Amino acid sequence: MTDFDYAREPTEQTVGKHAPARAEADFERAVRDAIDNKTKPVGALGRIESLAAQIALVQQTLEPTAERCKLTVFAADHGIAEAGVSAYPREVTRQMLLNFLAGGAAANVMASALDAEFALVDAGVKGPEIRHPKLDSQRIGNGTRNALEQPAMSADQCSHALRAGQAIGREGTHEVACFGEMGIGNTSSASLVAAKLLGQPVSGLVGRGTGLDDDGLVRKRRVLEQAAERTPGELDPHTTLRQYGGFESVMLTGAILGAAAAGKLVLADGFIATVSALAALRISPGARGNLVFAHRSAEPGHAVVLQALEAEPLLDLGLRLGEGTGALLAWPLVRAAAAMLRDMASFDSAGVSGRT
Amino acid sequence: MTDFDYAREPTEQTVGKHAPARAEADFERAVRDAIDNKTKPVGALGRIESLAAQIALVQQTLEPTAERCKLTVFAADHGIAEAGVSAYPREVTRQMLLNFLAGGAAANVMASALDAEFALVDAGVKGPEIRHPKLDSQRIGNGTRNALEQPAMSADQCSHALRAGQAIGREGTHEVACFGEMGIGNTSSASLVAAKLLGQPVSGLVGRGTGLDDDGLVRKRRVLEQAAERTPGELDPHTTLRQYGGFESVMLTGAILGAAAAGKLVLADGFIATVSALAALRISPGARGNLVFAHRSAEPGHAVVLQALEAEPLLDLGLRLGEGTGALLAWPLVRAAAAMLRDMASFDSAGVSGRT
Repeated sequence: MTDFDYAREPTEQTVGKHAPARAEADFERAVRDAIDNKTKPVGALGRIESLAAQIALVQQTLEPTAERCKLTVFAADHGIAEAGVSAYPREVTRQMLLNFLAGGAAANVMASALDAEFALVDAGVKGPEIRHPKLDSQRIGNGTRNALEQPAMSADQCSHALRAGQAIGREGTHEVACFGEMGIGNTSSASLVAAKLLGQPVSGLVGRGTGLDDDGLVRKRRVLEQAAERTPGELDPHTTLRQYGGFESVMLTGAILGAAAAGKLVLADGFIATVSALAALRISPGARGNLVFAHRSAEPGHAVVLQALEAEPLLDLGLRLGEGTGALLAWPLVRAAAAMLRDMASFDSAGVSGRT
Repeated sequence: MTDFDYAREPTEQTVGKHAPARAEADFERAVRDAIDNKTKPVGALGRIESLAAQIALVQQTLEPTAERCKLTVFAADHGIAEAGVSAYPREVTRQMLLNFLAGGAAANVMASALDAEFALVDAGVKGPEIRHPKLDSQRIGNGTRNALEQPAMSADQCSHALRAGQAIGREGTHEVACFGEMGIGNTSSASLVAAKLLGQPVSGLVGRGTGLDDDGLVRKRRVLEQAAERTPGELDPHTTLRQYGGFESVMLTGAILGAAAAGKLVLADGFIATVSALAALRISPGARGNLVFAHRSAEPGHAVVLQALEAEPLLDLGLRLGEGTGALLAWPLVRAAAAMLRDMASFDSAGVSGRT
């Protein structure tokens, strides 16, 4: 298997990209007019209006629907966890997988509270394979290798993870997709991936993850600087993912590409998911119109990546959990935005007077 | 009828207020421990955690529920609208009332999209009374008088509006209450009420409302300064509401007090609803624990009032519509927060390892 080139796929399918620019501009104006003619002052719903416009453009309709949302959580282990970069032991990845299966994790509880479906993928959790009817086993390996010393995965594994993610992302008739991750060590992996994609020193992208103390943070920064030195300078996305990615985060990159290609709106979660989104957009810039950035994480590297993407997230709640929880919390805003455009009366239809 | 004193009511019923301070502190610690022991790093759910703690304290349980939310929109007209302080004609209040009844307004559509109930109250819309099965007619008068020239309402009308609101606020078994408003001219009224309650010049509390242009803003500021000069200095809450309030916003103040007294969590909406909350807290400071500030409005006076209340809203989406729409958009966060505390597994119960 060779590296997969997604470059054409999502752009082909991201509706409107190949329509003549004039028709696209006309449609954008029609969307803007429809929103402005709703029974409210122009602009009075702020970001809900721009969100509604984005959904309309993705779905190419003035009556968009966002009634179903699905969160898929990808879990895997990271070789770099051996270097002591996390406040929690590596075993927690597997324990949390079981917690997800039992319905006890934050992502389960929030998905249920917020009327979203939930799915769980084992992308490569260390240890014997877990078989469970609620678990989609897509194991790329038994955890990645330690990226401090060697590439985290082979080129084949990276392509395999991207393809598996893409297939998962395409699945289903839900209009809105959230993707989450679980994997001890994965903020370290994400910091390295972001550094290599952005061509920036990794030190500016390192944070406390699940809650390192000051000494732990110093150690993590040193480990990541050393790991980054293995491959000097900026790297292309496939090389970056192979060198420093995780099975769950590379699969998440594929899932974003697949969901975008299938015309879904994708809610990007926190630091790790946003780095996966950055990688996805480096592979296929056309997916940008399908992406909504859900929240600003408390993990400091997130701000750097959001800025590079010129993304202004919807929420800022001091979250730093991952699992797609921030994406889930933004899903009701998407649902409300689509309903606003689809169902609100216009000044004409409701017989409401305009401005004096 | 005389001015009603709510001071004792909500504090009596805000659970725990009369419990010994020691027991209360013990319970707060138990709540904090329960949240910290959920299967996530300590603090990783940011403001969702503090929200969960607040709900637990209001309901005095480690297993809080927030499964039902109701939005009640109060509508009324303002005499001060005659002074040309709004971008829209006064008739829009009545037209919007009919739009709410037909289900076409933003508040209807968002309530439906976000799984909240919706109710509408005519607190004093100008013109003949509208009779409709979905409309709760609680008309205090045929619009207020023009506060530029005279008190907006009598002391009896003010007490009547507070009492009617209180009864509405107490009603129902929903755990979460949102209150919205509709009334052309009501940002002007709210600016005056806030200025008098805070003892600040009204000029710092004036904004474009539904979208005044620069000339309109200058005119509005001049009108409000003139209206404020009628009653120099800071005023007590009842005098303030009588002099400058609206039937819908005074009823909203009563509704906050009633809902808090009934042990509900109250989601405060934008500028006007937050000024009503400020008045409610001046009447009954004990209601503070029941209030969640939903969002930061684009109306500039909102920031001033939020600061006076030391309130940091959950959302910042550039909204400036009112109708309770901002409160509604924060309701899923409340639901998710309660579910997190009630339903998430603990490290012990899930067999997940703690920090290394």
